[in-house]
Amino acid sequence: MDSYKGVRDFYPEDERIQRYMFNTLEEVVESYGYEPYNGSVLELTELYTEKTSEEIINEQTYTFTDRGGRSVTLRPEMTPTVARMVAKKRRELGYPLRWYSIPNCFRYERPQKGRLREFWQLNVDLFGAPGSDADAEVIEVAYRIMRAFGAHEESFEIKVADRTLLETAFDAANMTPTQRDEYRRLLDRRPKISPEAFEKDAKNITKEDPLSLIENKDPSILQALTTLEDLLETLKARGVGNASFDPSIVRGFDYYTGVVFEIFDVAGEDTGSTFGGGRRSLFGGGRYDYLIEEYGGDHVPAIGFGMGDVTLKDFLEKHTLMPQERATADLYLAPATENDINRAAGAASFLREKGVRVALGMKHEKIADHVKAARKLSIPFFVAYGEDEEKSGTVLLKNLKNKKEQTVTLQDTPRAILET
Amino acid sequence: MDSYKGVRDFYPEDERIQRYMFNTLEEVVESYGYEPYNGSVLELTELYTEKTSEEIINEQTYTFTDRGGRSVTLRPEMTPTVARMVAKKRRELGYPLRWYSIPNCFRYERPQKGRLREFWQLNVDLFGAPGSDADAEVIEVAYRIMRAFGAHEESFEIKVADRTLLETAFDAANMTPTQRDEYRRLLDRRPKISPEAFEKDAKNITKEDPLSLIENKDPSILQALTTLEDLLETLKARGVGNASFDPSIVRGFDYYTGVVFEIFDVAGEDTGSTFGGGRRSLFGGGRYDYLIEEYGGDHVPAIGFGMGDVTLKDFLEKHTLMPQERATADLYLAPATENDINRAAGAASFLREKGVRVALGMKHEKIADHVKAARKLSIPFFVAYGEDEEKSGTVLLKNLKNKKEQTVTLQDTPRAILET
Repeated sequence: MDSYKGVRDFYPEDERIQRYMFNTLEEVVESYGYEPYNGSVLELTELYTEKTSEEIINEQTYTFTDRGGRSVTLRPEMTPTVARMVAKKRRELGYPLRWYSIPNCFRYERPQKGRLREFWQLNVDLFGAPGSDADAEVIEVAYRIMRAFGAHEESFEIKVADRTLLETAFDAANMTPTQRDEYRRLLDRRPKISPEAFEKDAKNITKEDPLSLIENKDPSILQALTTLEDLLETLKARGVGNASFDPSIVRGFDYYTGVVFEIFDVAGEDTGSTFGGGRRSLFGGGRYDYLIEEYGGDHVPAIGFGMGDVTLKDFLEKHTLMPQERATADLYLAPATENDINRAAGAASFLREKGVRVALGMKHEKIADHVKAARKLSIPFFVAYGEDEEKSGTVLLKNLKNKKEQTVTLQDTPRAILET
Repeated sequence: MDSYKGVRDFYPEDERIQRYMFNTLEEVVESYGYEPYNGSVLELTELYTEKTSEEIINEQTYTFTDRGGRSVTLRPEMTPTVARMVAKKRRELGYPLRWYSIPNCFRYERPQKGRLREFWQLNVDLFGAPGSDADAEVIEVAYRIMRAFGAHEESFEIKVADRTLLETAFDAANMTPTQRDEYRRLLDRRPKISPEAFEKDAKNITKEDPLSLIENKDPSILQALTTLEDLLETLKARGVGNASFDPSIVRGFDYYTGVVFEIFDVAGEDTGSTFGGGRRSLFGGGRYDYLIEEYGGDHVPAIGFGMGDVTLKDFLEKHTLMPQERATADLYLAPATENDINRAAGAASFLREKGVRVALGMKHEKIADHVKAARKLSIPFFVAYGEDEEKSGTVLLKNLKNKKEQTVTLQDTPRAILET
């Protein structure tokens, strides 16, 4: 019987990796005071139709009609859900509100490497704080996550831009809304085309290139540029040593209103779908000050980012940062004979209370079969327990990895195992 | 904007409860060496049609056709998924295989108290161990879970029966397959009808009542009864003091083949949908030795149980066993003035490395506003940090719950907070 295409089964060896990643993410974001929330995978399709074209919803999401005639969508991203939740209780909640979640999200597309139909995504959001110190905090959290996984500062980089700065440059260049849209799309393509091609296309859109206004620090954009430079200074002061300004960072979502940022794997190959020059986009985010009010009515400024599990896993494996997680059980405790099963169960119970995770061997097996089973299950320690062990109060503790054996009291067994 | 009916939003106060429950479940089952696995919410509908009528699938599950023309179902339970996964890798896996998961599951029905369209369910399964010691272990795990939540042995009871015993009694009473089906359904109704009504209906099905054969310890069923009594003895030896035999425990699923068990809230009201007599069914499980082979080809005996989050939460709240979980942040650290934001960020960074979860106050706020925000966010400790604090190396640590204040060095702040 097959599983559904494009989604994953997580056998224990896979699930341990997910848990290692999620636990690390949770530890970092909770150290900044972010609180966990969650929502259902099922959302009314209306939640998305107001912000997204029906075409995208029909073609790129799982949308179906329930028996009550309501259109339901499997969430393709978490931002609309969190915006809905914050909007609903905006009067009761305390600010600055720090929230995070690691939901699974769904998109309907042809499965390919790194693009699955179901993925998990850390979402970190800070609500009710409009200032650049909030921007700095969220970027700092993204940085700390990478460091917590053991990534060196040289192995990734954080590129920061500001939609306000770009808009100011658009204003200075007297661009129409249509020209602005076209220019944003051109910026998005910039890493994939030659500088000459970019310049030529830019000229076709607007007489005065807004990007060169920024790069030449034109007086018209100087104030907006200073704000961004202050942010970069703040980040440096907080220990974020690999953030820099990159005016071509745009980020796809329409709802961004201010700072946008993107984290790149410096050693990454260019996948074509992301910014090039030997770097690969890992994740990113930005400020979206008007989204909550579109869902609810009050103004609640917000900044956040999302980070997918597949990209993260690829990064950790490529940089050999994925730890070897050991099996859930610490000890395989076998009854010495089939008459010892309750005796062995008693010893197991004692050890569990001391924090040892004990897989008890089942009866009707030879000791050699027990050892074989323990090896197959990757359980690191082995003990056979029977009448002799009960009388003496000691056991022969075998380390199945290095084949060392030691005689220890049952009392000392937890220490001998847990300190290894 | 509304959420979809019958599913839940988990605001941080709700999500903390889920996490407390899930963490406790994970700790107990991992102490027995059970390993985590997971699968996708999306399964091919075929996974269920072979075991369940199409009518049930159409009426009680979320089933839809994807754009590739495949019929997809949101999993209504985890057992078919785990059976599929074990069947697929049955040759590579080590046995006894102990697995657990806490997946969300979906059913399409009218939302009502305790019956939601999306629920989470702990699934604990032990594969490849056919003996009664495996039965004992799984029931013991169920017992330890209840105890780990603080439930007294008197507040719940474990009722055990055995399908083999019932079949033996059916054989002894010379019953046809149709009579057996009818009798099982009658047993399921037993708690809701009078003993006289039961007796009368039983007489209508079969001349010789199989239940009275069991209750009178008829020689024909004695061997099967002894097996069950041995199991109860083993459970008692392992410290499970509230398990007993109840021949009317049947459990709905067709795939059970041996021991079945059900845990009841002794103090529970009769909900009508569960076994009565003042007790409420909490969860249960049983042995299903032939399911894996139906999915894959090899014989892999199995026993397991499932436990829903909604029932568990109701039980804990009713028995006042739900702890007050505190907010994720331990400390609200406010910059003393808006010029102190980077200074405060530095102190926050120091404290985070020592394990304190610090929510940093944003600039442009008065200290009184910061304190108000910290209270609203239920953060227990508060510090204002500026030039004075940096110079002296000490802070005034306010406990916002009991209003006590103490002057401590920044170095000692983690201890002062974490030891409270």
